[in-house]
Amino acid sequence: MDRMSLISQLAVESPDKIVLIVMDGLGGLPHPDTGKTELETAKTPNLDRLAREGMCGLSEPLGAGLTPGSGPGHLGLFGYDPFAFVIGRGILEALGIDFPLEKGDIAARGNFCTIDGKGLITDRRAGRISTEVCTKLCEELSRISVQGVKALVAPVEGHRFLLVLRGANICPDLADSDPQQVGVVPKDVAALSREAEATAAAVNNWIGKARGVLAGHHPANMVVLRGFSQFPQLPSLVELYKLNPVAIAAYPMYRGLARLVGMKVVECGRSVEEQFDTLVKQYTDHDFLFLHIKKTDTAGEDGDFQRKVKAIEEVDAAMPRAMELKPDVIVVTGDHSTPAVMKAHSWHPVPFLLHSPLCRPDDVTEFSERACSKGALGRFLALDIMPLALAHAQKLTKYGA
Amino acid sequence: MDRMSLISQLAVESPDKIVLIVMDGLGGLPHPDTGKTELETAKTPNLDRLAREGMCGLSEPLGAGLTPGSGPGHLGLFGYDPFAFVIGRGILEALGIDFPLEKGDIAARGNFCTIDGKGLITDRRAGRISTEVCTKLCEELSRISVQGVKALVAPVEGHRFLLVLRGANICPDLADSDPQQVGVVPKDVAALSREAEATAAAVNNWIGKARGVLAGHHPANMVVLRGFSQFPQLPSLVELYKLNPVAIAAYPMYRGLARLVGMKVVECGRSVEEQFDTLVKQYTDHDFLFLHIKKTDTAGEDGDFQRKVKAIEEVDAAMPRAMELKPDVIVVTGDHSTPAVMKAHSWHPVPFLLHSPLCRPDDVTEFSERACSKGALGRFLALDIMPLALAHAQKLTKYGA
Repeated sequence: MDRMSLISQLAVESPDKIVLIVMDGLGGLPHPDTGKTELETAKTPNLDRLAREGMCGLSEPLGAGLTPGSGPGHLGLFGYDPFAFVIGRGILEALGIDFPLEKGDIAARGNFCTIDGKGLITDRRAGRISTEVCTKLCEELSRISVQGVKALVAPVEGHRFLLVLRGANICPDLADSDPQQVGVVPKDVAALSREAEATAAAVNNWIGKARGVLAGHHPANMVVLRGFSQFPQLPSLVELYKLNPVAIAAYPMYRGLARLVGMKVVECGRSVEEQFDTLVKQYTDHDFLFLHIKKTDTAGEDGDFQRKVKAIEEVDAAMPRAMELKPDVIVVTGDHSTPAVMKAHSWHPVPFLLHSPLCRPDDVTEFSERACSKGALGRFLALDIMPLALAHAQKLTKYGA
Repeated sequence: MDRMSLISQLAVESPDKIVLIVMDGLGGLPHPDTGKTELETAKTPNLDRLAREGMCGLSEPLGAGLTPGSGPGHLGLFGYDPFAFVIGRGILEALGIDFPLEKGDIAARGNFCTIDGKGLITDRRAGRISTEVCTKLCEELSRISVQGVKALVAPVEGHRFLLVLRGANICPDLADSDPQQVGVVPKDVAALSREAEATAAAVNNWIGKARGVLAGHHPANMVVLRGFSQFPQLPSLVELYKLNPVAIAAYPMYRGLARLVGMKVVECGRSVEEQFDTLVKQYTDHDFLFLHIKKTDTAGEDGDFQRKVKAIEEVDAAMPRAMELKPDVIVVTGDHSTPAVMKAHSWHPVPFLLHSPLCRPDDVTEFSERACSKGALGRFLALDIMPLALAHAQKLTKYGA
C-alpha cells in the first residue's frame, strides 16, 4: 500500500484545528551586502516566538536540488506525492484564470504567434500583443465549431490563451503543436495513443480554422498549443483525512489547486489583513485552514529583496490574529524558495515551523533559514508536513497493535 | 532486491558483541512545570557518558507523524520493515500470553459479550467479567469440537480471550464477527477468499456451539471475534545476519516478538536488576543481546511522569553492569515514545545512542531528546538501527568490489 493510503487508513476525526500558513517562495539567499536572507533581514517577533515554542526544520518540496513549480510545490504541502500526481500545463493555466473546468475536460496552453508567407514561425509571442487584443481574438476563436468536440477559448495574458476541449470520448494523449522555436512550421498535433486519434483530428481541424480566422490579424496570425492535459482526479482531503478544509487564497491558481484537493474556497480580499480577517471568520467552521500569501513570491521573482522583506514583516505583524485563535497546530512555511537574488523559484529548502502543545520544542529561537537548519526536524521532505500536522492535531491513530 | 536481503547478503560472522537495550516508550514530552522531558529530568550519568563517547540521533519507528503499536515498533528495531511484515491482532494476543503457537495456526482475539433476547449486542465487554470467570468459561468453550479444525481457547484478561484454530488447509482470510458496536447482531464470519470458505464455515459452526454453551452464563452469553491472523513466517536473525541472539524480556508479548525473529528467549526476573544479571550470565554465549525494559512504557501510559523518570534512573544505575562487559556495540533506545503527558504511544522520534570503539563521536554530551536531535544521526528511520549496529560490530562486509 502506498504511504498516502496508509496514512488515510489511520486518519480519524478530532476537534483539533490546523492552521497552515504558506508564504509563497518564502526561502531565500543572503543579500550580497549583508550576508542575510530576506527572512533573516525581516523583523519577525511573532514568527520567532512560534519558532521558539515550536519545532523547526527545512522542508524540501521534491528532494535535493530539485526546483518545484507552484503545482508540485503545493501538492507536496497538502500531502500528495508531486511525482505521482501530475498537473499538466494546460490544467494549471486553467486553474490560474479560475476557468470553470468540468470533469473530462482537456486543457491546453495556447500562444498567439506570427508566421510568414511560407508558414514558418517568425515570432513565438506575436510581438507580445496586449491582453486586450488577446481577449478580442479569443472571442473570435470561440466561434469556431468542429465536429466531435466543443472548443472553449479564454484569454490569459498578453499572447497567452487557454484552449479547453469538452466532449464524450476525448483523450488527452496529444503531443504539442508548439515547436518552441522559430524558423519552422507549427506541428500538427499528433495522437500519442490510438484512443487519442479522433481528438487529435478534431484539434488539427480547429487549428486549421483558427489559422483562417487569424489570417488578417498579423502579427497574431497563428496559434501554437502545448501541455494538453486532463483535470486530474485527486482523492480529496475530506475523504483522505476526514478534514473539513478551507482555503484562504487570493490568487486564482492557488484557489484552483485548493479546489482540486477538495478544500472549500472562500472569498477573501487581496491584502494580508483581509486574508487574516477571513481566517478569523472561517475558524469555527473548519478544522483545516490554509492561508496562502502570494506577495513574498512575487517580490522574489521581481528580484526585489526589500519588498520581500516587507511582505514577510507584514505577515508577521498579522500573525497574532491567528495565534489568538489558539489553534492546536500552526504550521508556517513556503511551497518553495524564491531568492530575490535569483529572481526565480529555486531548489533551496524552505524554512518550516510547527507550533503545537503536543510538539517537542527544539532549541531554535528564531524563524530563519540558518536557525531552522538546526531544528529538530532537520532537512526533511515536504510530504512529511501533512502527517506531522495531522499527528499533532491527534487525527492519526496508532499503526498496528 | 529489497534492502533487508541486501544487508543479509553482506552479513558475516564476527566475534564482536552487540547489546541492544530497549526502554519501551522511552521518548517523552516536556513536563508543563519544568519544560523538561522524562529523560531530561532523570539523572543519567551512565547514559550521558555513553552518549558523550558515542553517537546520537532521534529514531523514527515509522516515519514522520506515525505512531506504532508494540509489534511494528519492535520489528523496526530488529530490522524488519513494519509495513512489509504485519503481525495480526490475534497473533499479537497469542504472543501476549505466551501461547505455544504452531506453524499454520490461526489466532483471533475474542471478547465475551452480552446479547439480548433478539440476539442484539447490549454490552461488548459482558459487564467486564473477571479474569476468573473468563478462565472458567474458556474451559467450557475448549470442549467444543467442530469438524475440520481444532479450536483452542485460552483466557487473556477480563472479558478477553484467545481463539486458536489448528488444522490442515485452514486459511486466515476471514472477516471479523465483531461489529464493534452495540444494538446489532454479531456478524457471521465471512470468507475473504475462496480458500477460506471451509475455515469460515468451521468458525461459524464453532460460534453457534459457543452460543449454546454460554446461553446460561449471562452477562457473558455470547462471543465476538476479530483479527484472524496466521503466525507470520519471518526470516530469523540467525539466517539473515548469522547472529546468535538472545532476548532478555520479562513481558510475554516481547518474548513472543523475540521468538518470532528467531531469538533464544531465556528466563529472567521481572526487575531491572535481575534482567541485567541475566545479561551478564548470557553474555559469553551470544553475540546479540536484546534487553527489554517495560516499566518506562507502563509509567508513560499511566501518565506517571515521576515513575517514568525513576524507571529511567533505575536503568541508568544498572548500565555499568552492561558497560563493564565492554561490548563492541551498545545501543540504547526505545521502540517508540510514550510521553506521560499524553498517556499513550506517540509519533515523536525516540532518543538513540550507539556506543562503539568504531563509532564517530559527535558533540552530544548527554542522553536526552534535545541533545539527540543535534546528534550526528539526526532524525532517522529505525530500520537503519540494525545495519548500523551490525556495521559497528564488523558484521557487514563491503558491497561491491
